Amino acid sequence: MTELRKDPIIDNWVIISTERGRRPLDYTIKTEGKKKDSCVFCEGNEGETPPEVFAFRKKGTTENKPGWKVRVIPNKYPALQMEEKGIIVVGAGMLKKMDGLGVHEVIIETPHHQKDFDDLSVDNIVLILKTYRERYLYLSKDKRIKYILIFKNYGIDGGASLEHPHSQLIATPIIPQRIKEELNGGKEYFNHNGRCIFCDYIKQEIESKDRLIRETEKFVVISPFAARFPFEIWILPKYHSAYYEKINNDDILSLARIMKETLFKIKKKLNNPSYNFVIHTATSKEFSAREQDLDKKYHWHIEIIPRLTKIAGFEWGTGFYINTTSPEEAARILR
Amino acid sequence: MTELRKDPIIDNWVIISTERGRRPLDYTIKTEGKKKDSCVFCEGNEGETPPEVFAFRKKGTTENKPGWKVRVIPNKYPALQMEEKGIIVVGAGMLKKMDGLGVHEVIIETPHHQKDFDDLSVDNIVLILKTYRERYLYLSKDKRIKYILIFKNYGIDGGASLEHPHSQLIATPIIPQRIKEELNGGKEYFNHNGRCIFCDYIKQEIESKDRLIRETEKFVVISPFAARFPFEIWILPKYHSAYYEKINNDDILSLARIMKETLFKIKKKLNNPSYNFVIHTATSKEFSAREQDLDKKYHWHIEIIPRLTKIAGFEWGTGFYINTTSPEEAARILR
Repeated sequence: MTELRKDPIIDNWVIISTERGRRPLDYTIKTEGKKKDSCVFCEGNEGETPPEVFAFRKKGTTENKPGWKVRVIPNKYPALQMEEKGIIVVGAGMLKKMDGLGVHEVIIETPHHQKDFDDLSVDNIVLILKTYRERYLYLSKDKRIKYILIFKNYGIDGGASLEHPHSQLIATPIIPQRIKEELNGGKEYFNHNGRCIFCDYIKQEIESKDRLIRETEKFVVISPFAARFPFEIWILPKYHSAYYEKINNDDILSLARIMKETLFKIKKKLNNPSYNFVIHTATSKEFSAREQDLDKKYHWHIEIIPRLTKIAGFEWGTGFYINTTSPEEAARILR
Repeated sequence: MTELRKDPIIDNWVIISTERGRRPLDYTIKTEGKKKDSCVFCEGNEGETPPEVFAFRKKGTTENKPGWKVRVIPNKYPALQMEEKGIIVVGAGMLKKMDGLGVHEVIIETPHHQKDFDDLSVDNIVLILKTYRERYLYLSKDKRIKYILIFKNYGIDGGASLEHPHSQLIATPIIPQRIKEELNGGKEYFNHNGRCIFCDYIKQEIESKDRLIRETEKFVVISPFAARFPFEIWILPKYHSAYYEKINNDDILSLARIMKETLFKIKKKLNNPSYNFVIHTATSKEFSAREQDLDKKYHWHIEIIPRLTKIAGFEWGTGFYINTTSPEEAARILR
């Protein structure tokens, strides 16, 4: 079966081609090697990292000392820094650039070096998700920041350079390309239909069940209709909300459970592949305020991409994806 | 040095971050292993592939027999096929799909299994580039085809599944995302300035010399201002032309020389990495005819991406790239 499918949110088509002689689970996967015993992110080595900017800690413990549960530090090799003079657009002829203003942080998810995200207790994952919320709330107060991107690279093929469980935060004066396209898709649909495109899309996926992996009271897990990658997975809240940072504690608990379950399924069914997840949320609060009703036009969600295939450069280079596992098949296997 | 740079053609920003503790040539590169002796693409094994659709042959030799110099065959596992009924957009609620109409071909670049593209004689490369032109001209007559994409995946990390030198052609009823953005950038600039954005950009790169790798009478080789990848390279004709397929024989000879030289430099200076190249050209002729003056608004070129880094999934997922080698440094090394 070969089909071209249009992403329901953004104006992009994907080729779903399952005839290319490859069975769904027939990917070459590098299983992760045995982990080291410790590293600079481990408890007791706090002095080897930049000082923490946020932490959940056991009562009575001190900053930059043991006793933390989740710990946020500036990235030692930051892609962006707030110490830059501000946003200066230098026009070198037709060429525009800014200095690298922004924030680059590491969220150390747990003191346990050996554990993967899906091995962590639900309580631990709740604290991670609360940490994400805290950092969004804190950093979005800065008017120079347009977007805050939180993501996790797991495994060597996922781009992780340190194996201790951690996620990253990059706050930027620009909006990432795909988020911009999603925002545009959301705005256009709202202007025509007066409704959130994601809400309508979620309803349709729940009705059809073809790509539904899991449904709880508050969340759905689906393999999206125009999945670019084999076993691409989205976790979306069923209730409408543009901003991840507005999530309440009850919903954080539900999300923690569904994330643990989903990442565990990926590990078991796909033989522990590298993966990445990215939180897609609306632009930062101060920036969003410039756009009327933005909160009605976007819908936060988490996108998970297991690293099962070598992406050919033409796919990077052109944004034109050929996916060799249909999302229906992926959902069937992960259900 | 960390900077944010806007791509001059499309509306996308890239982070150029060279402070992250990585020296320009400090990438982990898998050098390609020793090649096999032969394969289904080799001379003498013509019966093991689908019948050829085009070939440059020695005089007096017969179709699907030895004696060819460059040979084009349908892909055995095509992502798309012309036998599909036509373009049917099925509206499943808000979801759009088409059947997989299109063409997927393999261009076997030489009978010599052991040679890389840069090892081939200039005469051989000329024939490859003429083959590309023939296929563009032939396939763009079909009104159902909107875009013809020719690309090469070299090396395991480049996504090549067979080591015999070959490129691929995919003809589709859609326009790849990045090409669409380039076309839009080109149109917008032309409507404001009455000139080709690429022509203006090329002039600026020739004047500044900062990112210039090579200049000949007809072509320039540059590392682009907002390079997404370390050592990303573009080869552009200095003369204005929207369509690769309009290239004349003299210019094909110049292009063959500059491609051989550029790919040889990549092999030598970067330790034989995997790479991809993609020809960016305007939409196919029949489709282009629907747009007034499209030939003035676009400028064909070749983009080369050496596969030096593991791209983190968040980069795939968001279109937001962090490049750890500045294009000025890349140009200096490749000059």
